[in-house]
Amino acid sequence: MPDDLRYERGRKQLHQMMGEVGDQALDNIAGISPDMARYIAEFVFGDVHSRPGLDLKTREIAAVVSLVTRGGAEPQLRAHLHGALNVGCTEQEIVELMIEMAVYAGFPAALNGLYAAREIFAERAAKAAR
Amino acid sequence: MPDDLRYERGRKQLHQMMGEVGDQALDNIAGISPDMARYIAEFVFGDVHSRPGLDLKTREIAAVVSLVTRGGAEPQLRAHLHGALNVGCTEQEIVELMIEMAVYAGFPAALNGLYAAREIFAERAAKAAR
Amino acid sequence: MPDDLRYERGRKQLHQMMGEVGDQALDNIAGISPDMARYIAEFVFGDVHSRPGLDLKTREIAAVVSLVTRGGAEPQLRAHLHGALNVGCTEQEIVELMIEMAVYAGFPAALNGLYAAREIFAERAAKAAR
Amino acid sequence: MPDDLRYERGRKQLHQMMGEVGDQALDNIAGISPDMARYIAEFVFGDVHSRPGLDLKTREIAAVVSLVTRGGAEPQLRAHLHGALNVGCTEQEIVELMIEMAVYAGFPAALNGLYAAREIFAERAAKAAR
Amino acid sequence: MPDDLRYERGRKQLHQMMGEVGDQALDNIAGISPDMARYIAEFVFGDVHSRPGLDLKTREIAAVVSLVTRGGAEPQLRAHLHGALNVGCTEQEIVELMIEMAVYAGFPAALNGLYAAREIFAERAAKAAR
Amino acid sequence: MPDDLRYERGRKQLHQMMGEVGDQALDNIAGISPDMARYIAEFVFGDVHSRPGLDLKTREIAAVVSLVTRGGAEPQLRAHLHGALNVGCTEQEIVELMIEMAVYAGFPAALNGLYAAREIFAERAAKAAR
Repeated sequence: MPDDLRYERGRKQLHQMMGEVGDQALDNIAGISPDMARYIAEFVFGDVHSRPGLDLKTREIAAVVSLVTRGGAEPQLRAHLHGALNVGCTEQEIVELMIEMAVYAGFPAALNGLYAAREIFAERAAKAAR
Repeated sequence: MPDDLRYERGRKQLHQMMGEVGDQALDNIAGISPDMARYIAEFVFGDVHSRPGLDLKTREIAAVVSLVTRGGAEPQLRAHLHGALNVGCTEQEIVELMIEMAVYAGFPAALNGLYAAREIFAERAAKAAR
Repeated sequence: MPDDLRYERGRKQLHQMMGEVGDQALDNIAGISPDMARYIAEFVFGDVHSRPGLDLKTREIAAVVSLVTRGGAEPQLRAHLHGALNVGCTEQEIVELMIEMAVYAGFPAALNGLYAAREIFAERAAKAAR
Repeated sequence: MPDDLRYERGRKQLHQMMGEVGDQALDNIAGISPDMARYIAEFVFGDVHSRPGLDLKTREIAAVVSLVTRGGAEPQLRAHLHGALNVGCTEQEIVELMIEMAVYAGFPAALNGLYAAREIFAERAAKAAR
Repeated sequence: MPDDLRYERGRKQLHQMMGEVGDQALDNIAGISPDMARYIAEFVFGDVHSRPGLDLKTREIAAVVSLVTRGGAEPQLRAHLHGALNVGCTEQEIVELMIEMAVYAGFPAALNGLYAAREIFAERAAKAAR
Repeated sequence: MPDDLRYERGRKQLHQMMGEVGDQALDNIAGISPDMARYIAEFVFGDVHSRPGLDLKTREIAAVVSLVTRGGAEPQLRAHLHGALNVGCTEQEIVELMIEMAVYAGFPAALNGLYAAREIFAERAAKAAR
């Protein structure tokens, strides 16, 4: 597939998963490195996240879990918490994931995941209330 | 809930998720530290994994993703690959998760996840063929 | 042991180790997930930290070292620096631990530990001066 | 660029950097997941490592340093130690990198890097002696 | 070599690599732990970074890559981005390293590296414009 | 202090803490990089571990905890488990540390710590029985 088709597919997939938060993050990245932004559109969203083998909800759950386990990746965690909620996760499911992470990644990682989730939940509630 | 009920519930949950591999791992751990084995039954499986908020398949996907991201936890990764397959993941879904991990945890972590998956798939195929 | 006894024991243990900082952190967590707060009281403090096999000072040293090694867990590190000082660590011992961490976790991790320690020392000095 | 051109460019780049060790690793990966192998050829080597902005020696130094810092990625570290030596690093430079890693990633990570380097040096010396 | 010669050599090496940013960071550290500051001068810069086996540009590239891979070490990453630029890296080379890190440490780590790089580039541009 | 005094002090300190296991590991390292071995003697043991501010038992506890948290550093963990037992830790205290690590570093890291501890305990029991 030519790169421009992968790019277009990726931008659509990014928008479907992460909404305006994702579009803005990508434009932001393009301001530092247009090639990095292009790889994210083409490879991350156009190739990987467009694959049919996993539904989007599972893809976002995996992203959130990986970011909580790694730690120190708050901007990406916040973006993927939005993504997870956009594609059908409930807030309660996200809290459940954080509780499970206490077991696998330790309580400190899980608590930082919970704090990030609380902020995103509040942001979205404030926006919905407007 | 008294500890013996949590323990019983946890052992059942462990068996449902991870089968004999899980039972043996727990007995193995009890040989070093009976208290650690008890906490795994009571807390990990009796408290956390018995919670209703996430289906078992999602719980095992989260465990696998966390272990691949962390790296250096092959025995646990192998056990939870069995667990994921036991509760309904397909081999193809596990391969998809590893491909997604190339994005979030890097290609080296993803490849080590794929190598572990290949071994577990082969083990189960050999057992099924007998 | 029934959960309410574990909970009570855990809250007492938490208070003994981490003082009001710990009580507030737990109430804070309960505002996002009451169950997560309950597990921290019951399991982390009621089960694990109430065990007789290690004195509280060694327990807090281990927590601080683990958090410095992991990195990216500043809120927990700050809480456990308070904890360590509450149960008998001196400031000099904490500085020594950070110097040792340069060897095992690398200088960047050790320096972030030192910066966190400086803040906590200053906070406590300011409070003591009032 | 169409995917088949990216793939071809990537396989050439892989071979130039990592020789037969790299070709075999990729075929090995294709036996588990043909798509993962394809992404490695297309994206990792066809897109990223084919970029003109860094010479191959610096690219391999960066790969080695990242793998030593992460830890738990021995197969990839071994492959990239071969790669580094193939594209012009000397053994002494690799030892220097490991010594520097004692500072940034800690002595344990650095020592595991040195042990891996020793094995690769011995393997290549044995092969050269034949 | 006596410690005072190692210390002097280290302070010079630190200044050559990291300029005033480095001098200030060391004085800052000395305010918490004079011994830690001394070890950084003596061991990190007087012993390790004064070794002849790698040029300073490669040393700073390795430091940057290790810090991006670890994550959660922003103050050190910022200091070594200055260092890398001081000893001859171009901004474009640093962006290339971050793109390569998407492969080895994952896209989230690479993006945090890019964000830090953008800040340092802007800081230096603002200073140069004065 | 001249380097040869630091070296001598370090070798003595290493022997006191880690016994023959430590002496052999250092000779082993010297076979790959004499300078790395020298830095371990001079800096790690001659400078850091010779400092008076922490007793040797606490130093080895901190090393073990850091290595368990990091993961993927089995040779170093094994060496420091010997060290901890040599300078006065009991086996039960080490098991307690691993149980505590389930909280801070996650159950997988803690279990790998327990497995390593079991091996070292068995090795020492076998040697004592001869």
